Amino acid sequence: MSRAKSEVLDAAAEVFMTLGAEAASIDDVARHLGATKGRIYHHFPSKGVLLAEVCLRAADFAHRAVHPVLDPDLPPDVQLRQMVCAHIPAVLGSLPYHKVILQSFVGMSQKSTTALERSLLADIRQERKAYETLFRDVISRGMACGAFRSQNISVALHSVLLMVNAPVFWYQPRAEDSTDFMTDLSEQLADMAVAALQ
Amino acid sequence: MSRAKSEVLDAAAEVFMTLGAEAASIDDVARHLGATKGRIYHHFPSKGVLLAEVCLRAADFAHRAVHPVLDPDLPPDVQLRQMVCAHIPAVLGSLPYHKVILQSFVGMSQKSTTALERSLLADIRQERKAYETLFRDVISRGMACGAFRSQNISVALHSVLLMVNAPVFWYQPRAEDSTDFMTDLSEQLADMAVAALQ
Repeated sequence: MSRAKSEVLDAAAEVFMTLGAEAASIDDVARHLGATKGRIYHHFPSKGVLLAEVCLRAADFAHRAVHPVLDPDLPPDVQLRQMVCAHIPAVLGSLPYHKVILQSFVGMSQKSTTALERSLLADIRQERKAYETLFRDVISRGMACGAFRSQNISVALHSVLLMVNAPVFWYQPRAEDSTDFMTDLSEQLADMAVAALQ
Repeated sequence: MSRAKSEVLDAAAEVFMTLGAEAASIDDVARHLGATKGRIYHHFPSKGVLLAEVCLRAADFAHRAVHPVLDPDLPPDVQLRQMVCAHIPAVLGSLPYHKVILQSFVGMSQKSTTALERSLLADIRQERKAYETLFRDVISRGMACGAFRSQNISVALHSVLLMVNAPVFWYQPRAEDSTDFMTDLSEQLADMAVAALQ
């Protein structure tokens, strides 16, 4: 992705987070960026496409962070811990994107109108599903070998994912947040996720 | 609360959930109710007040369900389990209210303008805090006596609360859902909540 396009997405994520994707306009994004609407339309044909690209990139941030730690030879509890520890800093480092995703979870998503927007929404669902599947697989592997207790896997999966994503609701980036803070937070959530399944 | 007022709130919760509180109008609520706008304004002076009353009632549903099981003499893990088992059916039985609350968590809350609306928003924050405190207290008691492991209590509290509320995101009421379904779901989430803290 070009740097110019990336900057527009960052600005859009910030503005959609603050005003709500429903209420925010391309004008608001342009103002935040100190740019003309033309600069935005150069990369994104509509607000719907811009919103969809923000959501797609949110999943991408998490996916890229977790991918390198995937190793089917690791015990499931160790694997899950590593996935959570990779997930947290990636998500909190791109917080506005994930706040926008949350809006869409609670039914605030823009009605899609164009074929391009509908196709992007299908991509988002597929990306989200693929990411969830990484966690479903490790939980399922853990249940099969007795590392995790047997229970309804969909209920467990969604509860664990929401548990580790709780900081998306409360986290406010602060200058004084150190690497230690992020490590401690990630480890606490990884411990809780593994314990919840045992 | 009068039955007439309660019916308006139920309709508003449903409409705010479906259309988003930001996008929905008093007209939409009236249409859903098959009533005039006058009937709504008779009970609620503005959309802001109506939205605030929906949020207040959401907290009230949970509070009323959990209050009867509070017992400071119970061991913390048993107490937490009972609280979660009371919380789940209450929340899923008033789902639209809690979906609307979720919208406000992700920054979609209506800008408040009148003094009445601002005062209601303060009430909502206080109610929410009071409810969280019930869970904070039992977790804190559990950490003090060694039933739960020592860790950052705010991080633990918010993650556990979000974990048990995960069904608010995915649950779709269906005719075939039995009492057994609700009991199984509540017990699974109670087990996960207790395990996450141990």
